[in-house]
Amino acid sequence: MVKKVLVVNRGEIAVRIIRACQELNIETVAVYSEADRDALHVRLADEAYCIGPALSSESYLNFTNIMSVATLTEVDAIHPGYGFLSENGDFAEICSACNITFIGPSPDAINRMGTKDVARKTMHEAGVPIVPGSNGLIDSVDEGARIAEEIGYPVIIKATAGGGGKGIRVARDEEELRNGITITQNEAQSNFGNAGVYLEKFIEDFRHVEVQVLADTYGNVIHLGERDCTIQRRLQKLVEETPSPAIDEAKRDEMGRAAVKAAEAVNYHGAGTIEFIYDRTSGEFYFMEMNTRIQVEHPVTEMVTGVDLIREQILVASGYELSYTQSDITYNGWSIECRINAEDPVRNFMPSPGEVSMYLPPGGFGVRVDSAVYPGYKIPPHYDSMVAKLIVHAPTREEAIARMHRALGEFVIEGVKSTIPFHLRLFEHEVFTGGDFNTKFLETYPLTYDEDM
Amino acid sequence: MVKKVLVVNRGEIAVRIIRACQELNIETVAVYSEADRDALHVRLADEAYCIGPALSSESYLNFTNIMSVATLTEVDAIHPGYGFLSENGDFAEICSACNITFIGPSPDAINRMGTKDVARKTMHEAGVPIVPGSNGLIDSVDEGARIAEEIGYPVIIKATAGGGGKGIRVARDEEELRNGITITQNEAQSNFGNAGVYLEKFIEDFRHVEVQVLADTYGNVIHLGERDCTIQRRLQKLVEETPSPAIDEAKRDEMGRAAVKAAEAVNYHGAGTIEFIYDRTSGEFYFMEMNTRIQVEHPVTEMVTGVDLIREQILVASGYELSYTQSDITYNGWSIECRINAEDPVRNFMPSPGEVSMYLPPGGFGVRVDSAVYPGYKIPPHYDSMVAKLIVHAPTREEAIARMHRALGEFVIEGVKSTIPFHLRLFEHEVFTGGDFNTKFLETYPLTYDEDM
Repeated sequence: MVKKVLVVNRGEIAVRIIRACQELNIETVAVYSEADRDALHVRLADEAYCIGPALSSESYLNFTNIMSVATLTEVDAIHPGYGFLSENGDFAEICSACNITFIGPSPDAINRMGTKDVARKTMHEAGVPIVPGSNGLIDSVDEGARIAEEIGYPVIIKATAGGGGKGIRVARDEEELRNGITITQNEAQSNFGNAGVYLEKFIEDFRHVEVQVLADTYGNVIHLGERDCTIQRRLQKLVEETPSPAIDEAKRDEMGRAAVKAAEAVNYHGAGTIEFIYDRTSGEFYFMEMNTRIQVEHPVTEMVTGVDLIREQILVASGYELSYTQSDITYNGWSIECRINAEDPVRNFMPSPGEVSMYLPPGGFGVRVDSAVYPGYKIPPHYDSMVAKLIVHAPTREEAIARMHRALGEFVIEGVKSTIPFHLRLFEHEVFTGGDFNTKFLETYPLTYDEDM
Repeated sequence: MVKKVLVVNRGEIAVRIIRACQELNIETVAVYSEADRDALHVRLADEAYCIGPALSSESYLNFTNIMSVATLTEVDAIHPGYGFLSENGDFAEICSACNITFIGPSPDAINRMGTKDVARKTMHEAGVPIVPGSNGLIDSVDEGARIAEEIGYPVIIKATAGGGGKGIRVARDEEELRNGITITQNEAQSNFGNAGVYLEKFIEDFRHVEVQVLADTYGNVIHLGERDCTIQRRLQKLVEETPSPAIDEAKRDEMGRAAVKAAEAVNYHGAGTIEFIYDRTSGEFYFMEMNTRIQVEHPVTEMVTGVDLIREQILVASGYELSYTQSDITYNGWSIECRINAEDPVRNFMPSPGEVSMYLPPGGFGVRVDSAVYPGYKIPPHYDSMVAKLIVHAPTREEAIARMHRALGEFVIEGVKSTIPFHLRLFEHEVFTGGDFNTKFLETYPLTYDEDM
């Protein structure tokens, strides 16, 4: 078993990792930026070291300073959490070169899944359904037009080096396509230094459904069911639940098997997530991408399966076999997570950093809070605005919704604006509670707020 | 379904009941004493009314004021929680006379289980094992000596009207017995106006193991497994867990069937608990008493069964059948509860009321907190010193212990002394973690503390 873990992250996920280590009797080392001196993860770890200024590139992404702390404190493993260095193959390589266990998959798995076109090709070869489209990059505008005709409009033009919403363009007819390919190629060349583009059918009416997998270094791979993350705002997930209201048991098994195949195709080990587009029109699902790390929304899976995913990550990285086989995994009840952000829903979700003058998380049966906030904590303006995850568990979706609404109602965060009022409205909305919606929910049903919130 | 519930209690159990009502979309009315104006249950309820001074007899036990609020607010049900009026048959009668549903069993069931000797006789007739002893009250010292010879020393002399540790005396030989009977009879006459005493075998090496039951008004009775409450200090439970480390599946079934028989014998409905003495020497169990109300430690049962006991109480009181049959009840993992009291473990558990200057409950996977504390809350000196219940859930006892220790370590309550340091020591003690102990654990292994805590 690893004995001492460096947690290269901040906020609730750093706290989550420290908790799992404490329960395994593993020592913990925290790192923090100058803006995070008073952060909860710093207080909870056995040791803590400042690694640079507030700017992430100079602290939480600073290889040199991080590896200095790792060497100084003689840790035998590093947990990267999510974001920051969690999907950086070079960082995983450096850990390996320093004889420090990177709690995550191999650099090769990270890199193959991190390159869009390679991932798409790898999945196709492994028999995982991918969105119909071009077989690799397109050579010419004419070839693009021919392929688009085959797969049918609308199509989406994607730069292979793109990402973060850049290098993507929808075409609804041939004229838009021909113009779009040229523009996207030019943009991609100037933005990413790589003009390569490929085509995919554009699926408009879909749900975001992803499957959690766990794998050890002995070739055992299991899946832990799906998470439905269809409620999004500008591609940011806001609410996640499991099971998905749109998926039945047969489909769950089918997606689960596909996810296991995907993980096997890159010799994956640790915890990972295969994200799928679930086409509401056809009922088919297609590989979107794989996140080669723990995800923000992992707790809902923990609530219904009872499996501690961070613990399993640590055990696998320590060389243990998985604690569970596929047949051990059963699904008990319903779980929903709300991401509570320090943002003002009344003012277009503008970030609202500052001092939390009063803080009282909800409690009671079926309520879990993962947060790094405490009364008097100053939320720094430099990082992601998510400050707490509120997770509920109940026998049915209806009861989980009632429990979430109750818990949101008693959640006290004062001094900053939070997205709690947004979630309260959402959980009162009959289309949401009905369960029948797609990723455009918030565009279709804009929620309204009282100005005095 | 009841539409509006008056919660006649305070502290965490009032909050627990309000939460369950909110999840069922039931309106809530809180009552409070002058000492509880700023209590959390007052803030969470839809309406709240002061019912008198701090002294319980003038507020939380004040029938007149309570029933005035009930009438004024037009509630259709009253939840009594635990303590206060929860096992007062007269109060249940008054509710009934006012056409208000008492969320609990019938006055008859309360009264029959509330009278020691009657309960013992009722259980014996129903085939529930009772501690060997006299068949009812003893007529003379000579008869007592004959019975004691039969059941074997040591024996315990109990006043039928006794309670709360009064009117109880152990005898280890005939001389102690003969003197003891006379003394106990005289004491009972002067203290309770009733000289009646009976004898029971004194079981010294035992565990406190109790069984949760649920029953509806249609004759359906189920049990939800046991809770082990062996860790006590002066008959006060401090830690509860389920399952019991001492009970196997066959014994669990046997105790469960006995508990169902006990409930059936008094036409019980609602949630109740049959407390048993589990004799570690013989492996036999004996009826101790029935608590005809929800108990402090009910959450551990909720964690392993998934059944919301307060919700079921409300549903049963509303005239619904139980949501579960016996075969629906399965036990998943291990759950432990620590009662966190505002007491100073270093100074003989002296109560420590006052202002909670800082409060941050633990969070994360498998952690539940039921509390009525918030930052700045002033714990009044007038009531029970329990201020929070920390409950954990994990796949095994070992993992639950590790999780509890982790959660205790991050629980922040400043401004008052708490029993958190006591629990930390306990969860580090190898006899406790080993699971093999009896009710004398704290006498046998006094825990020590650093003076500077």
